[in-house]
Amino acid sequence: MSQKVRVGLVGTGRIGRVHTQTIKQRVPQAELVAVTDMNLAAAEACAAEFGVSQVAPDFQALLDDPSIDAVLICSATDTHSTFIIQAANAGKHIFCEKPIAADLPAIDAALAAVDQAGVKLMIGFNRRFDANHRRIKQAIEAGEIGTPHLMHIISRDPAPPPIAYVKVSGGLFFDMTIHDFDMARFLLGEVTEVYACAGVMVDPAIGEAGDIDTAVITLKFANGAIGTIDNSRQAVYGYDQRVEVFGSKGSASSGNLFADAVTISSASSVQRGLPLNFFMDRYIPSYQLEVTEFIDSVVNNTTPPVTGADGRAPVVIAKAAILSYRENRPVKLSEI
Amino acid sequence: MSQKVRVGLVGTGRIGRVHTQTIKQRVPQAELVAVTDMNLAAAEACAAEFGVSQVAPDFQALLDDPSIDAVLICSATDTHSTFIIQAANAGKHIFCEKPIAADLPAIDAALAAVDQAGVKLMIGFNRRFDANHRRIKQAIEAGEIGTPHLMHIISRDPAPPPIAYVKVSGGLFFDMTIHDFDMARFLLGEVTEVYACAGVMVDPAIGEAGDIDTAVITLKFANGAIGTIDNSRQAVYGYDQRVEVFGSKGSASSGNLFADAVTISSASSVQRGLPLNFFMDRYIPSYQLEVTEFIDSVVNNTTPPVTGADGRAPVVIAKAAILSYRENRPVKLSEI
Amino acid sequence: MSQKVRVGLVGTGRIGRVHTQTIKQRVPQAELVAVTDMNLAAAEACAAEFGVSQVAPDFQALLDDPSIDAVLICSATDTHSTFIIQAANAGKHIFCEKPIAADLPAIDAALAAVDQAGVKLMIGFNRRFDANHRRIKQAIEAGEIGTPHLMHIISRDPAPPPIAYVKVSGGLFFDMTIHDFDMARFLLGEVTEVYACAGVMVDPAIGEAGDIDTAVITLKFANGAIGTIDNSRQAVYGYDQRVEVFGSKGSASSGNLFADAVTISSASSVQRGLPLNFFMDRYIPSYQLEVTEFIDSVVNNTTPPVTGADGRAPVVIAKAAILSYRENRPVKLSEI
Amino acid sequence: MSQKVRVGLVGTGRIGRVHTQTIKQRVPQAELVAVTDMNLAAAEACAAEFGVSQVAPDFQALLDDPSIDAVLICSATDTHSTFIIQAANAGKHIFCEKPIAADLPAIDAALAAVDQAGVKLMIGFNRRFDANHRRIKQAIEAGEIGTPHLMHIISRDPAPPPIAYVKVSGGLFFDMTIHDFDMARFLLGEVTEVYACAGVMVDPAIGEAGDIDTAVITLKFANGAIGTIDNSRQAVYGYDQRVEVFGSKGSASSGNLFADAVTISSASSVQRGLPLNFFMDRYIPSYQLEVTEFIDSVVNNTTPPVTGADGRAPVVIAKAAILSYRENRPVKLSEI
Repeated sequence: MSQKVRVGLVGTGRIGRVHTQTIKQRVPQAELVAVTDMNLAAAEACAAEFGVSQVAPDFQALLDDPSIDAVLICSATDTHSTFIIQAANAGKHIFCEKPIAADLPAIDAALAAVDQAGVKLMIGFNRRFDANHRRIKQAIEAGEIGTPHLMHIISRDPAPPPIAYVKVSGGLFFDMTIHDFDMARFLLGEVTEVYACAGVMVDPAIGEAGDIDTAVITLKFANGAIGTIDNSRQAVYGYDQRVEVFGSKGSASSGNLFADAVTISSASSVQRGLPLNFFMDRYIPSYQLEVTEFIDSVVNNTTPPVTGADGRAPVVIAKAAILSYRENRPVKLSEI
Repeated sequence: MSQKVRVGLVGTGRIGRVHTQTIKQRVPQAELVAVTDMNLAAAEACAAEFGVSQVAPDFQALLDDPSIDAVLICSATDTHSTFIIQAANAGKHIFCEKPIAADLPAIDAALAAVDQAGVKLMIGFNRRFDANHRRIKQAIEAGEIGTPHLMHIISRDPAPPPIAYVKVSGGLFFDMTIHDFDMARFLLGEVTEVYACAGVMVDPAIGEAGDIDTAVITLKFANGAIGTIDNSRQAVYGYDQRVEVFGSKGSASSGNLFADAVTISSASSVQRGLPLNFFMDRYIPSYQLEVTEFIDSVVNNTTPPVTGADGRAPVVIAKAAILSYRENRPVKLSEI
Repeated sequence: MSQKVRVGLVGTGRIGRVHTQTIKQRVPQAELVAVTDMNLAAAEACAAEFGVSQVAPDFQALLDDPSIDAVLICSATDTHSTFIIQAANAGKHIFCEKPIAADLPAIDAALAAVDQAGVKLMIGFNRRFDANHRRIKQAIEAGEIGTPHLMHIISRDPAPPPIAYVKVSGGLFFDMTIHDFDMARFLLGEVTEVYACAGVMVDPAIGEAGDIDTAVITLKFANGAIGTIDNSRQAVYGYDQRVEVFGSKGSASSGNLFADAVTISSASSVQRGLPLNFFMDRYIPSYQLEVTEFIDSVVNNTTPPVTGADGRAPVVIAKAAILSYRENRPVKLSEI
Repeated sequence: MSQKVRVGLVGTGRIGRVHTQTIKQRVPQAELVAVTDMNLAAAEACAAEFGVSQVAPDFQALLDDPSIDAVLICSATDTHSTFIIQAANAGKHIFCEKPIAADLPAIDAALAAVDQAGVKLMIGFNRRFDANHRRIKQAIEAGEIGTPHLMHIISRDPAPPPIAYVKVSGGLFFDMTIHDFDMARFLLGEVTEVYACAGVMVDPAIGEAGDIDTAVITLKFANGAIGTIDNSRQAVYGYDQRVEVFGSKGSASSGNLFADAVTISSASSVQRGLPLNFFMDRYIPSYQLEVTEFIDSVVNNTTPPVTGADGRAPVVIAKAAILSYRENRPVKLSEI
């Protein structure tokens, strides 16, 4: 593709706006032709703020525009699989926010449509594009730490979402841990079995809404390694995002990120400020990089760095984790 | 007790020598009357090196000496429970290295003898006396981190023991993780259920000897918290001993200890040296402090900081972990 | 000013391009009307890349445009004072890269023109806008470290500039330390005396070009505090930018910034990657913030955060440092 | 020398007691025959505590004992040079606490007596034996950082000494900085010129007593490197002992030491405890090592690691620093 990739975007909420800004300002190989949203006023505002010349009336209008090569789907989760199918049928390349869907038949239908159409599909697991996680991945691939034996992911949010959201989110494993399941696969490959241990420790209202807020999940990997994921809905000191992979030749581990590197020593302590508070502080560069790499894959006709299969697998792990927690037993992924 | 505590010590191997030196040089309230060992030449050498005036022919001779108030049992594990019973019956206070025994009936017999005699018994779980673990315990008790929700223990040795030792050690959970089970109880209280996931990743010979070398154990605590223990027989960079406790108001976590605090920045990296290599580097101050506190408990007639019950509980957890690993299911401690 | 600030920019070299991008993408209150450069092709390329609609033929054309409220002067240093005078006479607000000029009469003439015209002038000492330096300043102002007693600035470049540049740069004190002199004033106020100790240690060719490449400058402040600046043209591990201020109640110190927070532990060391390599990596956010704050000062009719006097003072200190080094004696600023 | 080195010690104050304990407990090649002190009750108490069998009536009695090979002089500074001369004349090897004397003729007389007698003399600059400073020295010698260009020593006490001590101490440069002058020589070799900048910032009473409490000293080294020493009598957060040496291939820098490696993250900060408070916390291992190495030099008939010339040189630098501060000018050591 010698020219710019012409892009349409649906869903101008928080993450849609981040992608709009990225494409307009940081991806010279892409041109953002039009944005749209169920709430057209939001789409208008987004277009005005970032200088997008056109607001489309709906997603179908993007698909009907023959000049558009690719769509970014940032709309509500329950629209994802349908939009993917429609876009694939229209011959558009697709970047879709995670997750594809909550149920596997919907995911499989979407992936089948993409396969049949021969278009590209990339799923927005942005953390794969974070400099820290990438450095750990690189350490593994370069053999710096030898054969991986153990993996630990700490992934704690600074505060729980509203209870209204908790009720529709699909639960902690599906809404929050899904990123960590993807990170586990990104770093160590396929998971074969999970054991989930969890509880309501942060807020009883989360329990009343049918969910849990704290969890430790043990993962067995196909390569024999063992890992854990540690989740909490509330780390009062901020967003806690750390990974360690331990292997036969050493260990690679990441710390949190901070707004500055200043230490204050006083008569009572040696202290620094809190970690960056949440994903819009910590992960902005990864959002920018993932869209850039999606456009690159379209331009260069290469496989996107996060495929449809990568979008399906963490959903399977999440389902196994939910079953494991309910039955208090290790669950093989082959059961799902 | 207004005078010095008069002490006899059995077992002048590695740890017995550490305790000999501690009592002679750092515990002014104790007087080391005599040492003994199955290998009398070793006892003679130890006595000569640290200036102990008397070598007793055997353990019984220590018990027969009416001037001796307390005994330190540092002999082989299979002598512990018998020696405890004999010492209790002789009315001596007892400090005994961990573990009391591998089987619960032997432990229970020893604890019963101690109870009946009304003497003091302290078990040598030295890590409780390490400045780092104590600081974390203090943070919990002072409410600095609120209600504990999650706990993680990283406990990795720098290199596996000889295969000959592996064969008789009772296995990783009983030989190595026992310290971590104790640390878990020290920090968060009683454990109710364990799930152990493990493998042979470091050396196939360990597997051939019937043991594992790498493990992740999930613990459920009576207070609702969840924890993990991460063990490896081989961290090539040195002894890895870290703990994190995460709670409603924050987190307390410890790093490894190093021989110096020097950083070298070069054209290729910013680096420092390796962590202290093993327990005789890292934990010497804790060995000294535990003996000091044992003597204090005798002098002041207080309960020793690690009781006989504290010696029994980790053995129960280890047995549950072994069962869990064998059957690949969570095991309640009440099953043991 | 209720509308957008309309801006013209001269000098589309490296830093001019950074400012162009900032105004176009990150300062909604400003509108970049036109850019220009001695090399019009460079101005055209910059305009095309960042979507600036107009390229002016020369600086005068910017001044002649009555719709332009403010100019950003990013051209060669020897044009600064003349352009400031012209812009002031044309009634434009001015943001000018440091330094205003190498000689004080030229600076004074520029400042006089600005005063007479009543326009705003801000000098581009970007490091004042860096999160780390700001945090230290805040610690001082909030009384976190009490009365400042000592200050140390480490400021080392990753590699020397080309010898051709060394020959015309005005020398290390004027070209490189000028930023540190400003930082010293930013943090602790007026300097009264300097003692400069320096040498040629990195490259003899720098000495042959009449300059030095390594220096330690001692500063006495009007408030009684003492400080040092440590400069090297070559820190092989990257850009070294650290500050410590020590006072009666404690100390505030900053570390370097890194591309990631990953540590690799191997059998030979515990290491991380190198610090960010140079100012275009480390200080980009500070460049963006300084322009934002300049526009804010125009919009809100407030004093810019770095004034013309702030542009003059470091030049006086640099001149004192040069004299001190030549004569190997402390030099009072009142001598200059 | 095939047998143990037989030692007498004079001066059982704080540091004399440390050395007594070291020789008794940690130096198997030495035998502490007798201790003495101007205050014989103190000597008796020390002997009793550490099990020294003999208390000598005075220093002369140690010299008169033909079985004694070496003396440790830990008495008041004004006795050092006389005791050294007497011990040398008696043919005893000598370990003497720093400084030898405050005036150079007294030092030179002592060194001459040592030379003539052919005995060994070691001066107690203990910091050379600290693991951190040694690691930096090793980095220099191994070429890890290339040719040294810059050196910085941070050396701040937690609190000022009593004013009564300040009045007789000889002043900050002679009493406190003397250790840093020695460290500078230890790391980078001979100093040729100093410039001292200082003030009274901590306590006006120190100024009224004729001293200063805060200083920055610039050092020029014979090898062309430049260094600074930063001193304060009061770092409220504890003993601040850091060194950096920067060279053509990198940098070696040391941090402070802490009682534990625990970090507490709360809703307000990420913090750890204070550095070790003072020299008896921080430098105990270095006191132990220096005595061990002195005994080794006697046993092996090698040059002690800190010679009489090493004891004289920092006094010369201190005198130059005092002159520099008084006259506010750089002072060459050749002037002293």
